[in-house]
Amino acid sequence: MPIREISVRNVNISDDFWSSRQAIVTEVTIPYMEKILRDEVPEARKSHAVSNFRMAAGEESGEFYGMVFQDSDVAKWLEAAAYSLFLKPDHALAERVDELVALIGRSQQEDGYLNTYFTVREPGNRWKNLLECHELYCAGHMIEAGVALHEAAGKDDLLRICIRLADHICDRFEKEEGIPGHQEIEIGLLRLFHATGNARYRDMALRFLDLRGKDPEWFIKHTPQHPGIHYGGYDIDPADTVYNQSDVPVREQTAARGHAVRQLYMLAAMADAAAETGDQALLNACMRLFDNITQKQMYVTGAVGSSAYHEAFTVDYDLPPDRCYGETCASVAMVFFAHNMIRNDPDGRFADLMELELYNAALAGMQLDGKRFFYVNPLEVDTSVCGKVPGYEHVLPQRPPWHDCACCPPNLARLIASLGRYLWSEDGDTIYSHLWIGSEAATRFGRIRMEGGYPWQGKIGYTIMDGGTFTLAIHIPGHVKKYSLQVNYHAEEYPVRNGYVYIRRAWQAGDMVLLHFEMAVRRLHADVHVRSCTGKTALARGPFIYCFEESDQAGRLSSVSLPSDAEIDAVSAFPGLPQETVCLSMKGNADLFPGSQYSPDMPKQVPCLLKAIPYYSWANRSPGNMLVWIREQP
Amino acid sequence: MPIREISVRNVNISDDFWSSRQAIVTEVTIPYMEKILRDEVPEARKSHAVSNFRMAAGEESGEFYGMVFQDSDVAKWLEAAAYSLFLKPDHALAERVDELVALIGRSQQEDGYLNTYFTVREPGNRWKNLLECHELYCAGHMIEAGVALHEAAGKDDLLRICIRLADHICDRFEKEEGIPGHQEIEIGLLRLFHATGNARYRDMALRFLDLRGKDPEWFIKHTPQHPGIHYGGYDIDPADTVYNQSDVPVREQTAARGHAVRQLYMLAAMADAAAETGDQALLNACMRLFDNITQKQMYVTGAVGSSAYHEAFTVDYDLPPDRCYGETCASVAMVFFAHNMIRNDPDGRFADLMELELYNAALAGMQLDGKRFFYVNPLEVDTSVCGKVPGYEHVLPQRPPWHDCACCPPNLARLIASLGRYLWSEDGDTIYSHLWIGSEAATRFGRIRMEGGYPWQGKIGYTIMDGGTFTLAIHIPGHVKKYSLQVNYHAEEYPVRNGYVYIRRAWQAGDMVLLHFEMAVRRLHADVHVRSCTGKTALARGPFIYCFEESDQAGRLSSVSLPSDAEIDAVSAFPGLPQETVCLSMKGNADLFPGSQYSPDMPKQVPCLLKAIPYYSWANRSPGNMLVWIREQP
Repeated sequence: MPIREISVRNVNISDDFWSSRQAIVTEVTIPYMEKILRDEVPEARKSHAVSNFRMAAGEESGEFYGMVFQDSDVAKWLEAAAYSLFLKPDHALAERVDELVALIGRSQQEDGYLNTYFTVREPGNRWKNLLECHELYCAGHMIEAGVALHEAAGKDDLLRICIRLADHICDRFEKEEGIPGHQEIEIGLLRLFHATGNARYRDMALRFLDLRGKDPEWFIKHTPQHPGIHYGGYDIDPADTVYNQSDVPVREQTAARGHAVRQLYMLAAMADAAAETGDQALLNACMRLFDNITQKQMYVTGAVGSSAYHEAFTVDYDLPPDRCYGETCASVAMVFFAHNMIRNDPDGRFADLMELELYNAALAGMQLDGKRFFYVNPLEVDTSVCGKVPGYEHVLPQRPPWHDCACCPPNLARLIASLGRYLWSEDGDTIYSHLWIGSEAATRFGRIRMEGGYPWQGKIGYTIMDGGTFTLAIHIPGHVKKYSLQVNYHAEEYPVRNGYVYIRRAWQAGDMVLLHFEMAVRRLHADVHVRSCTGKTALARGPFIYCFEESDQAGRLSSVSLPSDAEIDAVSAFPGLPQETVCLSMKGNADLFPGSQYSPDMPKQVPCLLKAIPYYSWANRSPGNMLVWIREQP
Repeated sequence: MPIREISVRNVNISDDFWSSRQAIVTEVTIPYMEKILRDEVPEARKSHAVSNFRMAAGEESGEFYGMVFQDSDVAKWLEAAAYSLFLKPDHALAERVDELVALIGRSQQEDGYLNTYFTVREPGNRWKNLLECHELYCAGHMIEAGVALHEAAGKDDLLRICIRLADHICDRFEKEEGIPGHQEIEIGLLRLFHATGNARYRDMALRFLDLRGKDPEWFIKHTPQHPGIHYGGYDIDPADTVYNQSDVPVREQTAARGHAVRQLYMLAAMADAAAETGDQALLNACMRLFDNITQKQMYVTGAVGSSAYHEAFTVDYDLPPDRCYGETCASVAMVFFAHNMIRNDPDGRFADLMELELYNAALAGMQLDGKRFFYVNPLEVDTSVCGKVPGYEHVLPQRPPWHDCACCPPNLARLIASLGRYLWSEDGDTIYSHLWIGSEAATRFGRIRMEGGYPWQGKIGYTIMDGGTFTLAIHIPGHVKKYSLQVNYHAEEYPVRNGYVYIRRAWQAGDMVLLHFEMAVRRLHADVHVRSCTGKTALARGPFIYCFEESDQAGRLSSVSLPSDAEIDAVSAFPGLPQETVCLSMKGNADLFPGSQYSPDMPKQVPCLLKAIPYYSWANRSPGNMLVWIREQP
């Protein structure tokens, strides 16, 4: 039996940190987004996404409105709603989901085709422009929603619609060549394969992966001229094959390049396909890109895609903190990629990456109240330039209420609502626990409960609820360098492999595993190749990366530095932050203005108190300057 | 008698540093540029500038080619050639200049109009689009060339052509409203006024200045629609009134904004006009902007205009060293501005700024051999991103041979060839020496010779060649904090006001003034508001700012730092640099890669030798990484 995730339906989360975030998503974010999709929030930008389906079903008249991929907002919301229905049964929501699914069904064409843009606006141009038109992308998201409703909410209507859609896609693209302009259908088809067992969908996903990059001129040859029509809201150049990773066959790619979300959705699908097929060349490519991203192209918060231009990876070590793009969707996609890599190899690096993204770059995308979202997640903000000066237009000091391209908010909502998927896996004789998030999993060896003080405190525990002879493999986060392990209050030693401690026993019901570890503040230092970080440190504690907001400091952020020997105290939450938050306090120095723009005098340093907060919680009080990397004085 | 520059024809430069640079300009740069303008350099980009004049004169057929302001390349070259003819009489060059001027004369229209773009391509559209069409800009440069040929080379043919052109402009714009889309005509008209004494030209320049910003919507109201025609090579938005400083009346402007060269040409004209008219409001605006630029918007090298987008000033303290635009032309224009400010007030800050630009940001624009030029002058270069990654496309590690928009090379050539203009001024009883550049000036009190070891050594001297009773006002550069002054080998003290020492005497022929001063290495520190510079130092010695090239160091530039107490030695030139160059050598530290992308370990530091060279000489050996601001360890 290969390694499989334990289904979201078999995992009940009960966690001090995440349960409240899931509650916000179910109670605030999902209802708020639904209103936006239905254009019921006057102060938010127009969405029209539900109306587009009504028009495609012939039940409303008017013009299609929005991005060519507007349908995907509905799909991602449905996926989030599916998990929400599992987390918190809600009859009224379930009815509205059913109605929306029925509407989607009525908008589906006879032959299974499903896309409101083309149905409403260009029925004659279906499947003619794969580079820009996002039909396969929208289909992939719809299929993911269909699978999620089936798995998490026991609702199969959308799954049936999606099977017709997938069959329509297979009918067409099994014969004819096609490369998705924006990867995503591959993820959807693989999930549909997992849900239905129908190998046709797996093979179709593999065919899409195999064709990509085989002929680097494919998009040049197959993209129609369309003067004046901007399907993606802007022109995509068919010759820019790096942008959508179609310049080189996927198995031969060596570094992450181009549009980050395209790259990462592709990698998530490749990792899933490799686990399914045992294709070593595919897995090797995944490993190369995982290493490239995490060792050379990732910010310390987990943010990826450093360039606003094309929302893209650029070159190794190009990680400017203040012009960082770091799209929320890219960090969400990093979780998908890492999660699928675990199926190939339960290596702690993958779980570590999931943890980093979940507690930092991805989570920062959402305001604490669940109502506003960042698309861009910088590591340094200077309000004198951000949002204004060229090169900083994309960087904002505050989460906006909604976005013209609204991909990130529902992406984050579905991730948080489906968090249970990412916690546990199992194979023939092992239960894997990847993340220390309080939960009870129904495994093939019965129920296991995980609970504890993480992420704020250094103790966690597992309780075996039913018992049996099996291995419990617990991931020890990479940042936990020392811990003590007890089984039933006796200290024990067990083998550790690649970041997991493997405890094999004949478990009795009520057996307990306890782990204690120090939650020290860590000072992180970057590779010297990262120009923008040398001589600086980033603070971390547990899974959290910290940042400094100017409003907490006595002086300007640009003036402060931290002596390398300064003690850093974990302190209780600063006013305005949730009370469980562990903040940091330390003695640093502030440079005083030396007198003129460029002065031969050394700036005078005055001692000052410095305060840091977890990165995900920034921009929740008064908007202002922020930085993650602080100058460190040796 | 107001303060006046001593004419370039009355100043003979004989200086260890600058004479050889003037020789390169006369012997290499000016002939090379002439060939380019005549399309005789196959490897350089096409210029067609001379051909455009032939077509306008009806002597060649074909299409106009180049920027709408292509004529200005010819004008700036003629201006440079004018000074070159004074520096080094050259019969063949003089003949070619005469021929070219005659061609320009033949291309001039009956009514005085002179512009090849409109004469060849759009004769019906003259003066219809002042925002984009650069007719007044080209006229300004042609007038400057006419004045230069008159003053420096005693040739008046172009001056006569330019008087007809200026009269044509006055005839039109004395009656009708007009605002130059790119300031420059104001400088030209004021120079023509100085050369001819005809107040009409001064008043026309004042009218152009007075109209600007009076009606912020002027360009919106007066710019024709022209779908598909990009006069400047790109669209200029009439509503972007900040771009060309037309949003606020010039006397009310408070900070430098928009296109840097437009801003600075305007300020140069304003300073000249203020000196001429005594208009205090105009002078106050110049002072405010001088302070704003030099205190808040200037790089330590003198580079200005930090943003590649619009080649523009942005906001105070936004000075990223690695994405710096710092157009060579903007630094040249800073010299013009400062030089005209001296006429209002001989304050050492203006001479200091001229010195800073001449020895650093402006001079760096030219390769040591005079053949290649930078348009953009960054303070930090990382070859892994520059020229490639979005946001760094404009930054190059090596001077290209020529540019599509070739404004900078001839601008630098005319500045260096006309250097004599910037050294001396006089009024009723004072001779001012602004720059320690070896030269002999013919003043109203006879000849004075300045010579010495500057810029490399700390001693200079003045010899009074004829004698008389007058004040010799010697500018002491702001970086010279201590000096000893001797008159005829006797130590003397004289009053110092605003950076000038005023020595009033009844001078005898052969009297000498000697100054000795220390040439210590200075560590400069930036205002703490400059995010990118805190915790760093820039090295300077004499007038030079220094930089580090990676090829001189043992390790990566991003890894090195300099202890605050490290001694810095002035050493002889590193291989590949001119032998007189004083380089710097010091003990620093290099960080060693801590082991992984983000490591809790402190990077290990190993001692290393660090070597710095004068900034202007960078990118003259092997192209590679460079930085000006180095991390400083307290």
